[in-house]
Amino acid sequence: MIERLVIFGVGLIGGSLALALREAGAVDEIVGCSRNADNLREAERLGVIDRWTTDVAAAAEGADIGVLAVPLGAMEPLARDLAQFWPEGSPLTDVGSSKQAVIDAVGAGFGHVPREFVPGHPIAGTEKSGVGAAFASLFRNRLVILTPADATNPLATDRVAAMWKAAGARVEYMTPAHHDRVLAATSHLPHVLAFTLVESLAGMSERDEIFHYAAGGFRDFTRIASSDPVVWRDICLANRPAILDVIAQYQHDLEALRGAIERGDAITIEQQFEHAKETRDRLCDPADAQLDT
Amino acid sequence: MIERLVIFGVGLIGGSLALALREAGAVDEIVGCSRNADNLREAERLGVIDRWTTDVAAAAEGADIGVLAVPLGAMEPLARDLAQFWPEGSPLTDVGSSKQAVIDAVGAGFGHVPREFVPGHPIAGTEKSGVGAAFASLFRNRLVILTPADATNPLATDRVAAMWKAAGARVEYMTPAHHDRVLAATSHLPHVLAFTLVESLAGMSERDEIFHYAAGGFRDFTRIASSDPVVWRDICLANRPAILDVIAQYQHDLEALRGAIERGDAITIEQQFEHAKETRDRLCDPADAQLDT
Repeated sequence: MIERLVIFGVGLIGGSLALALREAGAVDEIVGCSRNADNLREAERLGVIDRWTTDVAAAAEGADIGVLAVPLGAMEPLARDLAQFWPEGSPLTDVGSSKQAVIDAVGAGFGHVPREFVPGHPIAGTEKSGVGAAFASLFRNRLVILTPADATNPLATDRVAAMWKAAGARVEYMTPAHHDRVLAATSHLPHVLAFTLVESLAGMSERDEIFHYAAGGFRDFTRIASSDPVVWRDICLANRPAILDVIAQYQHDLEALRGAIERGDAITIEQQFEHAKETRDRLCDPADAQLDT
Repeated sequence: MIERLVIFGVGLIGGSLALALREAGAVDEIVGCSRNADNLREAERLGVIDRWTTDVAAAAEGADIGVLAVPLGAMEPLARDLAQFWPEGSPLTDVGSSKQAVIDAVGAGFGHVPREFVPGHPIAGTEKSGVGAAFASLFRNRLVILTPADATNPLATDRVAAMWKAAGARVEYMTPAHHDRVLAATSHLPHVLAFTLVESLAGMSERDEIFHYAAGGFRDFTRIASSDPVVWRDICLANRPAILDVIAQYQHDLEALRGAIERGDAITIEQQFEHAKETRDRLCDPADAQLDT
């Protein structure tokens, strides 16, 4: 049982975690903290948090577990504010999509990486943002990756893992660098491509028509381009080296396919499409897909 | 009422049209024709067609309306086989995703573009293929674009439009060239990007992990990469000039964003993501999206 959970940044992820733990009866009191009082009032009104404060010191007082659920760019200033107030021995975790960057930011803010800090990343979300989009089942059967830093106390890791399990998630472990490479490919690159596609089409003269004639496949394909721009700006900056690597690989592969189309190379085109379909059908299998719903 | 409908190529699209017209009571008899007897037997077993033949001449006999629902690369040989048998005055339409190419193929096969030929394209589909994936509501509230050729008899166009309306679709009109430009952007480019993404990730050393950690957003984003490789190979070849144009534009925009990420240009990244999100939220609005379900 978590006596007092403090969520810093009560949006889709922080709010959904609060709702999930409350529904599971795994938490006594949930405190929300951010710079945005309107957001916190809304979170209280929706029953996501029990009380709120914009004062980091007040939020930290008596905290049992803390969750940093702010955009990556806000991590370091928040950590700096927290450094002198965070209670020793209380686990502090985060939900950022780039782990080494968060470890660096928290380390810079605290002056060192605290033993209580457990970097974490729930592989879940929707293109919606804000506390109004939060829902209790967001993490059910979803993966949460914990990437303990060298300094992290294993007991803190265990308590954070227990929290995520109480919220319905499955927990796995990885090094921060490995996490950052895998997520660059599986999440960050698709977001970059989707944002770029919509932006590219938005610049075409037939723009309104293009969107008018978009079928379901297009809406699915571009859904992630409705994600929070600030969150994704920060991810692109925080995980820059790994993202640049996968973009370069993608550019190479796209140019190869473009060349095959240009020279009318039916065999190469079909082989690539066939291999892509076979890979996706096999690796994104229906059993896994059901876990998403 | 259509007395005898002949579907050439009974897959997802041809099969769904048959089911929709039957459910609407808009057709007396549905004949299936393709080179693949197993496929046709399956279509008959599923109740999609009333009878079938692999003989184009037999299929054409007494046909009231014909629908060419084969991959684009199969259009010209099929048209050549049909040329001497297609009954004068009976509308013949198609469902291909690239219109000028189909007009050229049918023209080459017949020796001229027949007055009965009404090029058409239903903006609907799923990543599934084959008659087993067909369902009666696929076209409900979806757009069908008809792109009459210079030779097309307006009476034939009206009958084909009436057929699609009976299947639940909304019909709009466009020139073939305009259709091809719009569809290159809204459909063909996203498919090229999705196939390339899966192929790109499939070549990475962490491949299995990458797909293991893929969340719902990734599955949505790559769903269209499970589409039929032959259909999409043919589309890439048939609509080559328009597709090369939009790929080039996309490459330019992706390189610009990559450059912004490389130099840590937070303002440009955020502006582009914000603009993309704003565009998508506005133009793929929820009212439209509901029509997809």
